[in-house]
Amino acid sequence: MSVLDRINHENDIKMIQPELYPELASDIRKFLIEKVSKTGGHLASNLGSVELTMALHLCMDLPEDKIIWDVGHQSYTHKILTGRKDEFDTLRQIGGMSGFPKTCESETDCFNTGHSSTSISAALGFAIARDLNGSREKICAVIGDGSMTGGMAYEALNQMAQVKTGCVIVLNDNEMSIGKNVGGMSKALNKIRVGPAYNELKANVENALLNIPDVGYKMAKSIKRSKDSIKNLLVPGMFFEEMGITYVGPIDGHDVGEMVKTFSKAFKLRRPIIVHVKTVKGKGYRYAEKYPEHFHGVDAFDVDTGKPLQKKKYSCNTDIFAKKLVALGNEYENLVAITAAMARGTGVSAFQKKFPKRTFDVGIAEQHAVTFAAGLAASGLIPVVAIYSSFLQRAYDQILHDVCLQNLHVIFAVDRSGLVGADGETHQGIYDTGYLTQMPNMTVIAPKNAAELEAALEYAVTASGPVAIKYGRGEACRLCMEQNVSFEKGSSELIQDGSDIALVSCGNMLETALQVSEMLKEETGITPVVVNARFLKPVDEDMLRYYGRKCKVVAVLEEQAAAGSYGEKAAEVLLKGTCKAKFLHFCIPDESVRHGDVASLRKQLGLDKETITKTICNALNR
Amino acid sequence: MSVLDRINHENDIKMIQPELYPELASDIRKFLIEKVSKTGGHLASNLGSVELTMALHLCMDLPEDKIIWDVGHQSYTHKILTGRKDEFDTLRQIGGMSGFPKTCESETDCFNTGHSSTSISAALGFAIARDLNGSREKICAVIGDGSMTGGMAYEALNQMAQVKTGCVIVLNDNEMSIGKNVGGMSKALNKIRVGPAYNELKANVENALLNIPDVGYKMAKSIKRSKDSIKNLLVPGMFFEEMGITYVGPIDGHDVGEMVKTFSKAFKLRRPIIVHVKTVKGKGYRYAEKYPEHFHGVDAFDVDTGKPLQKKKYSCNTDIFAKKLVALGNEYENLVAITAAMARGTGVSAFQKKFPKRTFDVGIAEQHAVTFAAGLAASGLIPVVAIYSSFLQRAYDQILHDVCLQNLHVIFAVDRSGLVGADGETHQGIYDTGYLTQMPNMTVIAPKNAAELEAALEYAVTASGPVAIKYGRGEACRLCMEQNVSFEKGSSELIQDGSDIALVSCGNMLETALQVSEMLKEETGITPVVVNARFLKPVDEDMLRYYGRKCKVVAVLEEQAAAGSYGEKAAEVLLKGTCKAKFLHFCIPDESVRHGDVASLRKQLGLDKETITKTICNALNR
Repeated sequence: MSVLDRINHENDIKMIQPELYPELASDIRKFLIEKVSKTGGHLASNLGSVELTMALHLCMDLPEDKIIWDVGHQSYTHKILTGRKDEFDTLRQIGGMSGFPKTCESETDCFNTGHSSTSISAALGFAIARDLNGSREKICAVIGDGSMTGGMAYEALNQMAQVKTGCVIVLNDNEMSIGKNVGGMSKALNKIRVGPAYNELKANVENALLNIPDVGYKMAKSIKRSKDSIKNLLVPGMFFEEMGITYVGPIDGHDVGEMVKTFSKAFKLRRPIIVHVKTVKGKGYRYAEKYPEHFHGVDAFDVDTGKPLQKKKYSCNTDIFAKKLVALGNEYENLVAITAAMARGTGVSAFQKKFPKRTFDVGIAEQHAVTFAAGLAASGLIPVVAIYSSFLQRAYDQILHDVCLQNLHVIFAVDRSGLVGADGETHQGIYDTGYLTQMPNMTVIAPKNAAELEAALEYAVTASGPVAIKYGRGEACRLCMEQNVSFEKGSSELIQDGSDIALVSCGNMLETALQVSEMLKEETGITPVVVNARFLKPVDEDMLRYYGRKCKVVAVLEEQAAAGSYGEKAAEVLLKGTCKAKFLHFCIPDESVRHGDVASLRKQLGLDKETITKTICNALNR
Repeated sequence: MSVLDRINHENDIKMIQPELYPELASDIRKFLIEKVSKTGGHLASNLGSVELTMALHLCMDLPEDKIIWDVGHQSYTHKILTGRKDEFDTLRQIGGMSGFPKTCESETDCFNTGHSSTSISAALGFAIARDLNGSREKICAVIGDGSMTGGMAYEALNQMAQVKTGCVIVLNDNEMSIGKNVGGMSKALNKIRVGPAYNELKANVENALLNIPDVGYKMAKSIKRSKDSIKNLLVPGMFFEEMGITYVGPIDGHDVGEMVKTFSKAFKLRRPIIVHVKTVKGKGYRYAEKYPEHFHGVDAFDVDTGKPLQKKKYSCNTDIFAKKLVALGNEYENLVAITAAMARGTGVSAFQKKFPKRTFDVGIAEQHAVTFAAGLAASGLIPVVAIYSSFLQRAYDQILHDVCLQNLHVIFAVDRSGLVGADGETHQGIYDTGYLTQMPNMTVIAPKNAAELEAALEYAVTASGPVAIKYGRGEACRLCMEQNVSFEKGSSELIQDGSDIALVSCGNMLETALQVSEMLKEETGITPVVVNARFLKPVDEDMLRYYGRKCKVVAVLEEQAAAGSYGEKAAEVLLKGTCKAKFLHFCIPDESVRHGDVASLRKQLGLDKETITKTICNALNR
């Protein structure tokens, strides 16, 4: 019986003898590597936070106490320690366990995360609520150094400085976010890491601060007043201390004993404290230690070689985008690219390699990325901002206020639009049609396939004003590669002429639309019209009105949430025309969409060819 | 002839003898007080930044050089110095001069602002574009200490630390944002303000840094390496220095000579630098110095007494909200309120006075405000987040990701929804129906009047999940104060029964709808149906379908941008029903809406009773 076998519920870890902690950590790592090698998932960050999670669980009583995991993809050990070992076989699969904390999965998950930099804000909420409720639970946020580049973390630190209640922020510092860290926070942390004053001197200050919390704090405070400058010599973490935030560390994030000692003291403080913990991303699996970026999120792989079980056989939209961006970069000297800590994921890395001086990785900082782009555009450059659909949400105000109201020529490459699958509801790119078409002056394009993605980029570079091009995850569509209609603003494209039924397909729904067309032909003998909407803004109103008059059914197909969708806009156009057709709208209902493979999700949501065909047949017969 | 009379174009200030600077500053202040006392506008911040602006204009060549004004309401002196003196009589009026920088007004305005904390991002964009373009213009951002609490400013600082090009950030520190500053940044700045090490020691470091830019910088760098700790003793601004950002200051923001000296040196540096300037908000007008928050943005006032020319005779929606919030606070002990540096503007100050421990002002930090609220809600409290419509845009992702996907019971009090008037396009609250109805699980209410605003708040407190209540600026409507239909989720309210025409009114369009009804009755003899939509999400589909079948015209009236609007959703419902009615949608066309009084704007946009009546008459006759 392994040590891990003895852990079947939260708090079971407390029954393990301390000398067995290394064995338990090793068991957990083996378990993680084995399971994730089969299902795919986040690996490197989870391997890095094994001991950190163990130490927190040793100091806390779950579910009463609360841990908020920033981003949340590093919560696997937490799931293992809270009775969810057996569910790892279904990790990220439809109906299975999520790869992120989920309150619906376990009482020990107190707050759902997914996007970066939210944990300190939430933790402060939990801490203040605890005081108002008169209870005494411990509150802890675990945040990586990468997430610290997100502005809202700093907004939370700003409030933290004035809060007078206990709340532990564990800064899990592996010197990486997803890629290598950039910018000032990274510099500040580096100075701490290499600071000469660390060792004994520091320990004294820490002790004064922590050993007798209240008195200790007052002591430290009086030292602070009288000898502010001297304290600067002793205490690293000046960045935080300058803001008035108590800081200790860095401590070894793979030494359970040291962490338990420090965390226990930290939890006794009556004010928020940052505990700086150093960990190694990918720890304990040599390939993940060597290639932490690759093993951040992986598909199934061979444990012995670290190589993917299935080689990627196809080009995905990201590859098409990456290649075209480089080509355009050769042609247009004023083209520049911006990424928010996702150079590889967005494909900007190819451009970066070719044009390092024209590429800007701003860290996990979508808001800044967009307004920075606005500044570049105001000076005559053509910035391409490549950010995943669900992360670009964070820059809603900047897209509207800084780019669109000024009608600046910024190109948004919106990757991971539509259903993303395994990452689940926080990552679904199903709101972008809504939020992008809301913006005045914005042009929104949903290319039907690889060729049109290239054409859209070409169009965008020579267009004026803001242009967003959105495309999905996974294999690039290669159907209907010829262009029937030149790429003019607001123009839709007739893919297949027919009668009675018009299938208006948005972006990646083309393949489904063609399949539905085939099925309808078989079932009814009718050859439907198939239209590629192409421009989701401006909407091709003439096309819609034409088919509204001519057909019996107009069906819009889009992999987007209903509210704010293309279909809503189409409905208003049709209603104001003299529409004789029945209107059908296949989209994602107004609810959050959990994780699972995209095909299964589509089926669940009624976006599969069978459901669509059946619904259209029914509409024809009525 | 006054000194100010000699300034009619940008750069004219350079012809003024230095000994006349105080007189010029005094002229500008008199001018500002006189003009703003008549038109209303932002006063205190402009009085505080007179010399700062003069100094920048003395060091820079406009329009080649670029100044980015954070928020931008402090740009009046800049407008005076760039040939726009005469336009102050039309300040913030329709067709007149904007109260914010506008690229369409003058070449010397290089970037439009309005929302907080965008300037450093934009300035970095301008600086990097300059280098890529091979030009040499000077770039400067002017940002207040309040704006420094916004997370995106920090995201920009984070990139600034790694940028190797000249860019001057003037930190205009008046120890206020709109209200008193809160949080860690404020603490860090305070420590600088009172730091003992300031005087001579500092000057030496500054000189070493600035006098011979390149060599000086290297020198400072080597000092940094070898004597990092000693440097801490000498240099304030550790917060910035820890991030690797060069910092000088604080210097006197009312001493033109000192600023010119420092700015000139700063502009010669080949890396970004923060120049910390201390100013007094409201400087030179005793009432504004004493009550800077009141004189932040004022209506027309009497210069001698500082009192408003017109006493407010009515209750505005904010007052109704404030009073009801306190009443609910008495009833529900778990009700808490959150504001983002707008306690007075949102009316949260009344609640704060009564329940200080249950009120949280997080600074200009909308993102944190919302996720903090999510944390509170997850612990069983009922947070009311009161933020203006256009500022809440910045928390789009947090509302969606942290509140709505978790279906947490957070109440959003969305003030300044609809047209706001004088502040113009950056402040129009015309996108909130779009972005709020996009969110899964969200309930969106647009109360018709004062009584319904109260009822909506009562409803929201006892509801589950997120609820947004949106209401406009200005006088609270007191028409139709009785409630015809109980306040159930998704229920619309029949205000007036009739035939042939259904006027579906959203929120503050009720008065117009009633007037239109009267005019239609006179013109056509028909008494229209008037419906208060009330719930913009969920939409009352039965009501819409009913009138779609029964009436000849269904007209939706809303003071919101077309894209993502209630009308679009209504159109889809009607189109899918068996709608016989003609559909008319009175809303704000898909374009930005400039400043001006709301009545004039509505006329311009076709939202006035005459245009609506005429359009409906035409539709009836066709």
